[in-house]
Amino acid sequence: MNDEKGILFILSGPSGVGKGTVRKKIFEQATDLKYSISMTTRSKRPGEIDGVDYFYKTREEFEKLIEQNKLLEYAQYVNNYYGTPRDYVEDTLEAGHDVFLEIEVQGAMQVKESFPEGVFIFLFPPSLEELKNRITSRGTESNELVLNRLKEARKEIEMMDSYDYVVVNDHVDLAVAKIQSIIQSEHCKRERIEKQYKKILEDELT
Amino acid sequence: MNDEKGILFILSGPSGVGKGTVRKKIFEQATDLKYSISMTTRSKRPGEIDGVDYFYKTREEFEKLIEQNKLLEYAQYVNNYYGTPRDYVEDTLEAGHDVFLEIEVQGAMQVKESFPEGVFIFLFPPSLEELKNRITSRGTESNELVLNRLKEARKEIEMMDSYDYVVVNDHVDLAVAKIQSIIQSEHCKRERIEKQYKKILEDELT
Repeated sequence: MNDEKGILFILSGPSGVGKGTVRKKIFEQATDLKYSISMTTRSKRPGEIDGVDYFYKTREEFEKLIEQNKLLEYAQYVNNYYGTPRDYVEDTLEAGHDVFLEIEVQGAMQVKESFPEGVFIFLFPPSLEELKNRITSRGTESNELVLNRLKEARKEIEMMDSYDYVVVNDHVDLAVAKIQSIIQSEHCKRERIEKQYKKILEDELT
Repeated sequence: MNDEKGILFILSGPSGVGKGTVRKKIFEQATDLKYSISMTTRSKRPGEIDGVDYFYKTREEFEKLIEQNKLLEYAQYVNNYYGTPRDYVEDTLEAGHDVFLEIEVQGAMQVKESFPEGVFIFLFPPSLEELKNRITSRGTESNELVLNRLKEARKEIEMMDSYDYVVVNDHVDLAVAKIQSIIQSEHCKRERIEKQYKKILEDELT
């Protein structure tokens, strides 16, 4: 018996931060998480499998899905659409399973509109940790270089604002362990457990 | 360099739930947590060491500490005082270390007044998980027995209300792993990390 809905975890972050690598490592290990496979209009590459790597759609099919509001989020890159099927995510959560999305930051903000209760994890480049050291050991860099780095850093920090957690991707294994901790601890949140127990009592007393 | 304050973790729960066992297991393993040793007016038992098991105080000393607001929380059990020294907790957090308290529920509520930002973990007896099974396999127990269990269960569930996390103590090792996940994930909370990074930027720009 499972009357409890699953939790939606969203891993996102600046492009190039290593989201794909971290996600693969998480799914290499035993996990109860369900990974939501994306849809795309880009052509299948050699070795890729429909329904494993992506769901491959034509441009017309994809645009119809957009019109029908069947996508939780979507975006275009290099003239191709990429998106997350809404039904799969909703049905899997409803069945009590956690769902894991690994998506770009624009997509994550779209998901937040439908699922504000999702757990949003921002994967952060280690460069800011390094920046900290660079800044504190001043004087060795030109002013312009330092200012540029600060500007970039500020942009990345502002992206954090809508997320629940920030994981610095300095070592992949460490980042994976932190994300697993977040998943486990979210299941221990009081509101979640209290609701389950209160439901047991109510079911008995009514 | 560490400009960041530590996090205060409070482990509490109904008496007899196994808080002490779980806490000892946590500190048996490598950990950066600092355990706050309690003060007591009860006499030292053979084998106990002052400053390791407890700080032993006379009744007069203890009451003076209460008057001076030097205790973060205190309570009386069997005619003896037990309490948590405020200075140790505040100084250790200020120095950037996490502090771990294992205390009774009344004490936890006192700590919450001084440290609403603390992370409050409620250790929960496995009996309610069992209750779930008992209730769902109805008919085999007398009505009165079931109603008594429900009443007790309701009381325990209401105690949860002020806590951030609930950990069911069905297996000690599992409960310990969950608490360790909570500790690790709390360090990944966005507000905490964002503040650190924003501080780095501000320090540079002013």
